[in-house]
Amino acid sequence: MKESMIIVYEKPEVYDPIFIEGLPGIGLVGKLAADHLIQELKAKKFAELYSPRFMHQVIVKKDSTVDLMRNEFYYWKSPDKEHRDLIIVTGDTQVPPTDSYGHFEVVGKMLDFVEQFGTRDIITMGGYQVPELDGEPKVLASFTDLETKEKYKELPVVIREDEGGAIVGAAGLLLGIGKLRGMKGVCFLGESLGYIVDAKAAKAVLSVVAKVLNLEIDMSALDERAKETEEILKKVQEMQRAMFEQQVPQAPHEEEDRGYL
Amino acid sequence: MKESMIIVYEKPEVYDPIFIEGLPGIGLVGKLAADHLIQELKAKKFAELYSPRFMHQVIVKKDSTVDLMRNEFYYWKSPDKEHRDLIIVTGDTQVPPTDSYGHFEVVGKMLDFVEQFGTRDIITMGGYQVPELDGEPKVLASFTDLETKEKYKELPVVIREDEGGAIVGAAGLLLGIGKLRGMKGVCFLGESLGYIVDAKAAKAVLSVVAKVLNLEIDMSALDERAKETEEILKKVQEMQRAMFEQQVPQAPHEEEDRGYL
Amino acid sequence: MKESMIIVYEKPEVYDPIFIEGLPGIGLVGKLAADHLIQELKAKKFAELYSPRFMHQVIVKKDSTVDLMRNEFYYWKSPDKEHRDLIIVTGDTQVPPTDSYGHFEVVGKMLDFVEQFGTRDIITMGGYQVPELDGEPKVLASFTDLETKEKYKELPVVIREDEGGAIVGAAGLLLGIGKLRGMKGVCFLGESLGYIVDAKAAKAVLSVVAKVLNLEIDMSALDERAKETEEILKKVQEMQRAMFEQQVPQAPHEEEDRGYL
Amino acid sequence: MKESMIIVYEKPEVYDPIFIEGLPGIGLVGKLAADHLIQELKAKKFAELYSPRFMHQVIVKKDSTVDLMRNEFYYWKSPDKEHRDLIIVTGDTQVPPTDSYGHFEVVGKMLDFVEQFGTRDIITMGGYQVPELDGEPKVLASFTDLETKEKYKELPVVIREDEGGAIVGAAGLLLGIGKLRGMKGVCFLGESLGYIVDAKAAKAVLSVVAKVLNLEIDMSALDERAKETEEILKKVQEMQRAMFEQQVPQAPHEEEDRGYL
Repeated sequence: MKESMIIVYEKPEVYDPIFIEGLPGIGLVGKLAADHLIQELKAKKFAELYSPRFMHQVIVKKDSTVDLMRNEFYYWKSPDKEHRDLIIVTGDTQVPPTDSYGHFEVVGKMLDFVEQFGTRDIITMGGYQVPELDGEPKVLASFTDLETKEKYKELPVVIREDEGGAIVGAAGLLLGIGKLRGMKGVCFLGESLGYIVDAKAAKAVLSVVAKVLNLEIDMSALDERAKETEEILKKVQEMQRAMFEQQVPQAPHEEEDRGYL
Repeated sequence: MKESMIIVYEKPEVYDPIFIEGLPGIGLVGKLAADHLIQELKAKKFAELYSPRFMHQVIVKKDSTVDLMRNEFYYWKSPDKEHRDLIIVTGDTQVPPTDSYGHFEVVGKMLDFVEQFGTRDIITMGGYQVPELDGEPKVLASFTDLETKEKYKELPVVIREDEGGAIVGAAGLLLGIGKLRGMKGVCFLGESLGYIVDAKAAKAVLSVVAKVLNLEIDMSALDERAKETEEILKKVQEMQRAMFEQQVPQAPHEEEDRGYL
Repeated sequence: MKESMIIVYEKPEVYDPIFIEGLPGIGLVGKLAADHLIQELKAKKFAELYSPRFMHQVIVKKDSTVDLMRNEFYYWKSPDKEHRDLIIVTGDTQVPPTDSYGHFEVVGKMLDFVEQFGTRDIITMGGYQVPELDGEPKVLASFTDLETKEKYKELPVVIREDEGGAIVGAAGLLLGIGKLRGMKGVCFLGESLGYIVDAKAAKAVLSVVAKVLNLEIDMSALDERAKETEEILKKVQEMQRAMFEQQVPQAPHEEEDRGYL
Repeated sequence: MKESMIIVYEKPEVYDPIFIEGLPGIGLVGKLAADHLIQELKAKKFAELYSPRFMHQVIVKKDSTVDLMRNEFYYWKSPDKEHRDLIIVTGDTQVPPTDSYGHFEVVGKMLDFVEQFGTRDIITMGGYQVPELDGEPKVLASFTDLETKEKYKELPVVIREDEGGAIVGAAGLLLGIGKLRGMKGVCFLGESLGYIVDAKAAKAVLSVVAKVLNLEIDMSALDERAKETEEILKKVQEMQRAMFEQQVPQAPHEEEDRGYL
């Protein structure tokens, strides 16, 4: 396998589909959102992407069968003129962070593929790492162009007015490279502490995407996972508080002054 | 040398051979098992694989001659209809862990090569790292598909019912990529502490493979090495116990309370 | 995107242009100098270079639109026979330091591109890391050949007579590879402490380049940034002095002799 | 520059030349030996090898001109039938150790090149790292084949009878890859502590090579450098002794028991 390759099981008849990306990243936000969308829409898998740029391993599944790491493409045909056809990609992994060239290669192949189905619009989803969180996670939006930004100005998202930073990986590259190919897109990132499987952030991001797609999406399953996330968060915060108290220096003894490393 | 290359010394006449892999990895389990199998069957070397993806060095042999690092292919023709022809690969090295692309390239070339001889079935062998071992090492099995899993259900192996994990390197990739080419295979991993040359685990794995191949394999030489392995293990455990006792804090003196890093 | 690519928006009519490079590096000296030159000359952007060797991310701009990391080409047509046409390159980034092959690939593409416009002369600009600075930063000069060195002997630069060291990245490679293509060039490096945005060093380098180009360049904006640089430098030096005083061991107590890590 | 390239200034008329390699490595032994040989024979430079696999920098020479890092080829025509023609390669650098693929690529290009001149025999030179040295450094020899080993059995070299280890880089790869092309060769490694410019080891290696080539080589200049090497070695050993004495724990005070990290 010298290049990333896509195995196609079925050629869906879709028209001007929106390409939605939700691959593993910060807090697994994008992946959780994509998995839930696929589940609720009953989207159908039609292709798999394999790459020599992914980790050189196979995953052992619950039934003890093995598979290379891969990304998977699903499609959903809209039932009426009020909704758009969709192609959704999710999967096990992105290219490891040490291989920039590999990231460009995989995203390029992905765009070549969805272009064949007439894709011109892209939505990418992911997490945005913050040091602390109060209340509900906000959703940050970034765009390929000002026209797209204007189109989405009514969405309940945060558009930063200061120098933004960077979006690393497929969520950013799909927009950056797509833009050079004349595509338009938006990236929605949910605030996340990053080190847990963050279903709260995924729900926040998917709610915004649901508005964009004009879809009613039942969030119950994500809500369940969101509750689990809150409990884990509480426990982590308790642990952190306990660790902090242990580090506070004790009052000095009369005989010796002692410092702690 | 821009790509991995295979030098062929002889074209064996084999029919539907099973391709067996035992390359260096955890505990050298796969390599020990393959070396022993080749020795007992008197399998004949017929090809060598060299790669610009291996370490850029030569090995100096006992007689002071040098060779690039390489993998070696051996064949064994079955004596009757009850046994299958075999192609066995072992060698000095795998591609280093920092080069995923290299791993895919080498395994791809290997499969291209054995496909020329009609290979459709694969057995890979290796070690499975565990933190501690009681008694005989178990052998874990993973499969390309459920049909193969069903075929091997009588083997004295462990098939995990929870989320399995990953198999890194050729032992996994040969199955993962082979599966995309329509091949079927099984991977046998022997439990090993990992940091020693583990002949006990190799013996456990090879015993299972012998059953699969319906071969009687004299394990004496491996038994010898297995005894050496047990002695080394005992010594290591004594050393660890001694190191642990040195780290236990002493009873506090009346004058000072002292902690140890 | 398998190779670095240049998108051309306009084909400038320039004759024997000098190619001036100022990409991000030590103290951002080269980039600040190039940005200022482009601003003062009102040079016009005519091309962009994108590369799969750059970091796999997009930059989010103030207006929340995103772009891949890139280098940008500007041109300036000289108003008379006393001045030369110019092509200036600056941008977001160079190839990361772990990817030597990528550096050669990008610089090669750059030279292929500017050769199309008849470029034969190169000026590169950057920073030169020093442990401490007294007074105004000096500008070090290095050349492709002795003829060029002779041509610039009146410039207020330092030409080292001892073994020089190395110039890493585009500032060096453009000269080294350019030399193999029959081009001539000079590299001007301003002394810099390296860890701040060094507008003083940028001003020093640009003053020398202005002399070479026989241009009057208003340095006011750079002066402003240079003053900011001086203030930051003073603060940093105060902080360092404070940290040092904390590390001086205290006089020993009669009771205990205490050392500090 | 997508591949390593060789610029040829002159096509020497050599017949069946021996290819001698002395590139930078442990203790710079190989490079010192090659430089000295070139100097004494007055060998003539006829080609340069540049590579996108070398570090992405230029070296600034004493006269302030710059050059990419490169390897250089020299030739020497033998004056009579008792001596062989020679091609000698030395240079600034080898490929960095993190790029195995690059090492294979450069060595492959080197062998392609010298094969054009009829090369069938190779001598490589380098250092062999040892923890301590008594007296004169020994020279270890390794060979492509037993026939060559037999040919050199009278040389004052050490041929190890135990498992040898590995030879990393060009000194090993030239033999390993050359062997696959039907070439024959020998590698001479001088014992060296490794962290200094080791002219003593270089002299030892070159003396053996001189015997092989049946040449009288004036070692005066190397002797000079060898004396400098001895002085540096003595100073380093004094420094090490001093550091060791500082680390010995002091007798405990009556009041406190003190441990040292």
